[in-house]
Amino acid sequence: MQNLILHLDLIGTFVFALSGAMLGVRHRLDLFGVLVLAFATASAGGILRDLLIGATPPAALHDWRYPAIWISAGLIAFAWSPWIERLHQPVRVFDALGLAVFAVAGTDKALGAGIGPLMAPCLGMLSGIGGGMLRDVLLARVPLVLHAELYAIAALAGASVVAIGSVLQLPPVPVTVAGAALCFFLRLAALRYGWHLPKALQAPPGDDAA
Amino acid sequence: MQNLILHLDLIGTFVFALSGAMLGVRHRLDLFGVLVLAFATASAGGILRDLLIGATPPAALHDWRYPAIWISAGLIAFAWSPWIERLHQPVRVFDALGLAVFAVAGTDKALGAGIGPLMAPCLGMLSGIGGGMLRDVLLARVPLVLHAELYAIAALAGASVVAIGSVLQLPPVPVTVAGAALCFFLRLAALRYGWHLPKALQAPPGDDAA
Amino acid sequence: MQNLILHLDLIGTFVFALSGAMLGVRHRLDLFGVLVLAFATASAGGILRDLLIGATPPAALHDWRYPAIWISAGLIAFAWSPWIERLHQPVRVFDALGLAVFAVAGTDKALGAGIGPLMAPCLGMLSGIGGGMLRDVLLARVPLVLHAELYAIAALAGASVVAIGSVLQLPPVPVTVAGAALCFFLRLAALRYGWHLPKALQAPPGDDAA
Repeated sequence: MQNLILHLDLIGTFVFALSGAMLGVRHRLDLFGVLVLAFATASAGGILRDLLIGATPPAALHDWRYPAIWISAGLIAFAWSPWIERLHQPVRVFDALGLAVFAVAGTDKALGAGIGPLMAPCLGMLSGIGGGMLRDVLLARVPLVLHAELYAIAALAGASVVAIGSVLQLPPVPVTVAGAALCFFLRLAALRYGWHLPKALQAPPGDDAA
Repeated sequence: MQNLILHLDLIGTFVFALSGAMLGVRHRLDLFGVLVLAFATASAGGILRDLLIGATPPAALHDWRYPAIWISAGLIAFAWSPWIERLHQPVRVFDALGLAVFAVAGTDKALGAGIGPLMAPCLGMLSGIGGGMLRDVLLARVPLVLHAELYAIAALAGASVVAIGSVLQLPPVPVTVAGAALCFFLRLAALRYGWHLPKALQAPPGDDAA
Repeated sequence: MQNLILHLDLIGTFVFALSGAMLGVRHRLDLFGVLVLAFATASAGGILRDLLIGATPPAALHDWRYPAIWISAGLIAFAWSPWIERLHQPVRVFDALGLAVFAVAGTDKALGAGIGPLMAPCLGMLSGIGGGMLRDVLLARVPLVLHAELYAIAALAGASVVAIGSVLQLPPVPVTVAGAALCFFLRLAALRYGWHLPKALQAPPGDDAA
């Protein structure tokens, strides 16, 4: 199972890096900026999780395969961006897969570090969405995850399956697969059917002061 | 005293979460976005402080009362935002109370972790203002605390009282109460009388490059 | 050598703080906002590096000279900003010096904490550019380093010299000096000759969704 998660984790890193790098290309960043966005999107969620559970230095910093992968993804996006734009649909499917894997693997890691079953899924979700949030903050825009289709909720649902399975002491492999599958299909369904979380009734216009 | 601080801390968490969630509603975020802003505003300052002093995992992640409180505050803001808008004045009073409590409690915690009396008030201040700063960064705007009425300075003043009391070995409970009161009334007075820190003489217009 | 690095580190802190504070003045922040930008620009890179390698509390928080220096720089920028604007050229030279010192000192520290020679230069680069990135995020704009002249690459080049020297077990003092000099002159040459990294071919206009 460790092996399965590792492979999926590397795939997730690749697809997230690709998605971040593509946005950098669209915003007219230079090669370095594109690589930074590839790195931030692929690694920030996992690094933040590792910081929060005290696992320093974070895994993304001492396994050479991670930099190798996000650097490759960044260079590929930089060189062939017009071509990759046409792959929009496959990229979204891989992105959903990356989200699912990061969410369940992050939850597993948080549980292993002694975080309780209520907060561990939040850390798993953070592993999945943190990279995209930093990417958007660096591009000086409101993170998409705060107002897009079911994205974080899909991650949270998959992560919760893992936490519940751990509380009930179910066998970890099928539970992890089930959690990842739930997140994956929830995200794809949200994309296909345009599922959104509700927005609040419009508040009367007011000043922006806190 | 631990008990007093804990109760005030929970109140501060609630009010900060409410303020963050209200801003999310005004920016037309969905339910998840509103909850993220509630969490970020209420918890980011304390989490950052805990990361900086090496206290991992942060308290906000392993005490179930904190998520329970900020989730409730987020849901309340989501459901009844037009009604809460009318409470502007009370919310500001509670916000000042939260700032005061976070500032003194954060300073206490930093001193306990061996941070010197010069930097500990800065960490206390950070506990008080960090959440609001992350909230504004996520909304892609310049943090209010960088150009609003005396806000951070009120937190720093209260935090400094705690640090000075610790250096002089005064009894902690009255010192903590005095620090919190100083911050609270300074903030309220700044709001009422429109106290601002000075701005620098306008520099000649120039390019924005560093 | 420790002494040399310390002195250069303090100079770097001063110049970075000055550059951050000047930007705060230009954005019409109040005195506190200017000081926060001075602190963030001068210290955030090093603090983030220390968090990532697990060295808490970060050095910038328990050596009184660092706050003394960035507070002084912030006050100077606040009081004499029109005068400092005229020093644009010298400030850029000192900024390049600060970048060089932070990059090599950060790499040294990362290697000492057991980070491998592939990732250590990245942490050194992060020490050099992290402060400016946070400064720009707080001002709600895309970090300059993502699209400016060779800046991060100069830091990475200097940091890599240190890492390679460590792998080859060369004597540390000349290696560190060589790394810093490479970064410094590369940055100055990029400024003088307008060297840029390439940008990708313009992708066809598309929506911004990930």
